[in-house]
Amino acid sequence: MKIHNFSAGPAILPRTVLEQASAALLDFNGTGLSLIEVSHRDKDFEGVMHEARAAVKRLLGLGDDFEVLYLQGGASLQFAMVPMNLLRPAGKAAYVNTGTWATKAIEDAQKLGEVQVIASSEDKNFSYLPTGYTIPQDVDYLHITSNNTIYGTQMQSFPDSPVPVVCDMSSDIFSRPVPAASMGLIYAGAQKNMGPAGTTLVVIRKDLVGRSGRKLNAMLDYGVHIKGQSMYNTPPVFAVYVSMLTLQWIESQGGLSAMEKRNRAKADLLYSEINRNSLFRPTVTDDSGSLMNVTFVLKETTLEAVFEGLLREAGISGLKGHRSVGGYRASIYNAMPIESVQVLVDVMQALENKYAS
Amino acid sequence: MKIHNFSAGPAILPRTVLEQASAALLDFNGTGLSLIEVSHRDKDFEGVMHEARAAVKRLLGLGDDFEVLYLQGGASLQFAMVPMNLLRPAGKAAYVNTGTWATKAIEDAQKLGEVQVIASSEDKNFSYLPTGYTIPQDVDYLHITSNNTIYGTQMQSFPDSPVPVVCDMSSDIFSRPVPAASMGLIYAGAQKNMGPAGTTLVVIRKDLVGRSGRKLNAMLDYGVHIKGQSMYNTPPVFAVYVSMLTLQWIESQGGLSAMEKRNRAKADLLYSEINRNSLFRPTVTDDSGSLMNVTFVLKETTLEAVFEGLLREAGISGLKGHRSVGGYRASIYNAMPIESVQVLVDVMQALENKYAS
Repeated sequence: MKIHNFSAGPAILPRTVLEQASAALLDFNGTGLSLIEVSHRDKDFEGVMHEARAAVKRLLGLGDDFEVLYLQGGASLQFAMVPMNLLRPAGKAAYVNTGTWATKAIEDAQKLGEVQVIASSEDKNFSYLPTGYTIPQDVDYLHITSNNTIYGTQMQSFPDSPVPVVCDMSSDIFSRPVPAASMGLIYAGAQKNMGPAGTTLVVIRKDLVGRSGRKLNAMLDYGVHIKGQSMYNTPPVFAVYVSMLTLQWIESQGGLSAMEKRNRAKADLLYSEINRNSLFRPTVTDDSGSLMNVTFVLKETTLEAVFEGLLREAGISGLKGHRSVGGYRASIYNAMPIESVQVLVDVMQALENKYAS
Repeated sequence: MKIHNFSAGPAILPRTVLEQASAALLDFNGTGLSLIEVSHRDKDFEGVMHEARAAVKRLLGLGDDFEVLYLQGGASLQFAMVPMNLLRPAGKAAYVNTGTWATKAIEDAQKLGEVQVIASSEDKNFSYLPTGYTIPQDVDYLHITSNNTIYGTQMQSFPDSPVPVVCDMSSDIFSRPVPAASMGLIYAGAQKNMGPAGTTLVVIRKDLVGRSGRKLNAMLDYGVHIKGQSMYNTPPVFAVYVSMLTLQWIESQGGLSAMEKRNRAKADLLYSEINRNSLFRPTVTDDSGSLMNVTFVLKETTLEAVFEGLLREAGISGLKGHRSVGGYRASIYNAMPIESVQVLVDVMQALENKYAS
């Protein structure tokens, strides 16, 4: 049975990428060796790292004033590295709190300096995105989260900021065109739209490197990684390779504009059904519903067991909502075909046909 | 042509492990999904993490007083995390300097507190291991490096220490039985004997957790990772899975005693030839030659081009020594069969037969 993978992350990847990765584990570039048993200083792997970094710049339209790094530790380590590198010991940073991950980013920054939470949607369990806030001019940076996986909200536009913007794009990077060149730093755990778990993309404007003036441990210093061309120490070879393949797949499909078109078609299909179907309702309360993570609930929780049985029969996997929100979450990242979303919509309609009063 | 992979790391892995990993990228545990596109909270992957942690305890003979973590960032991040977690702000730490990696560990610790380098072999380019040093009683821990990949030295026994021992075992973990239960903390980048690049093993005695009393960022705090059962955030799924397979392979071969026997046979074969062959000499100057990384040079550098041509013809890869030592380095980790070492010995003998005066 074909499985329709709605997992929030690690998440669906293009089948052709998985096939290429599987083959490279047995023979990498015709070397007769596995991808994971060659030196990272080998010219074949150096080529992979070079291309993986270059593809990011091509897709985001960035020039020589930006550096691209593939680090480890997930977005969670960036919660610490961002203030370590950008927040001066006597400085301040502004954060917008739009969910669990932003909250963790704030907690880590508070261990390193003064943090101003300038807007928050915590009052309504992060079911909307705050607007109309003022960005202070005297902070070292503004931290935002472009997409909130757990709550299903996504920024529809980016703030016009007087200070460098740091954006956690873990769950919607490469899903749509963004004004990357206007930002100071973008980071993203790879395991949604760009590859497997195990590497974290960091894109940083060069003039921000060393901005905090702090004496940092080597692995926590962006400057050290830039000097080492993202190979200061052994990089996560496999995760970088699969990320490179995934970025090349995005380009082959037409780049970020094509991704957005594709993702919007899937999201429109699903949101329309959630709003039309008498048994369901969305959990996001404003117009910031995510194109990546579509969250919804059954109005009658007594139908949950039946609905989940139908989902299983249809081969739908990973639809359970995060425990802090409940209900359902359909993660429909780049690699998901619209056919899988249609299968979900069909199940929702079958449920309605049988149980709607 | 069969390639004989003498790479220092990332390095040779068992072929059966590579085949299992390649298959799991297309279908993991019969789920119909790739290993790298299922949630890490899925029970199938939770089973992998559980088994990967348990196998470490079985192989090292450790009980409930130890915790096992699979982190990210390589041994290089441990250079910082060890003092962050174990070195009290007003405390001291003792380090033995036996090479490049120990030097980097010292530099990172110095950023966090007082470091006493109690022994060093830097005076002779790390070509031997210092002995006869006294371990202070008033330090928070003693840091040692069990095997020095670049210089080809390996500790033949471990110090009897009045303070907790922290040991970087990146390049010889699981290659021989060690008195793990007598140590405080062991760490190792996976990419030599235990798996692919992208995860770092940390084994810590529970009573040392939180010892420094410092307020740490979440991802840099061993206590946070222990509480999260090594899944505080998304772990490096692929690297953990392949590590689990490799540890199971070690067990299937007879465990650490069998590994040592196997590794000693390979090393004996190669060291005997280096010492016998009139064209070569070893670079390690005492009796601490490594069973993992065998370093040697040609007495006449004019023969290098001929030797390297013969190596290529024989399918020998990755034998070039590190630039700081020069010459040659044969890395003969667990997964390397003795047949590959014999091919190298044959080439050395062929060179001697043709060029020795």
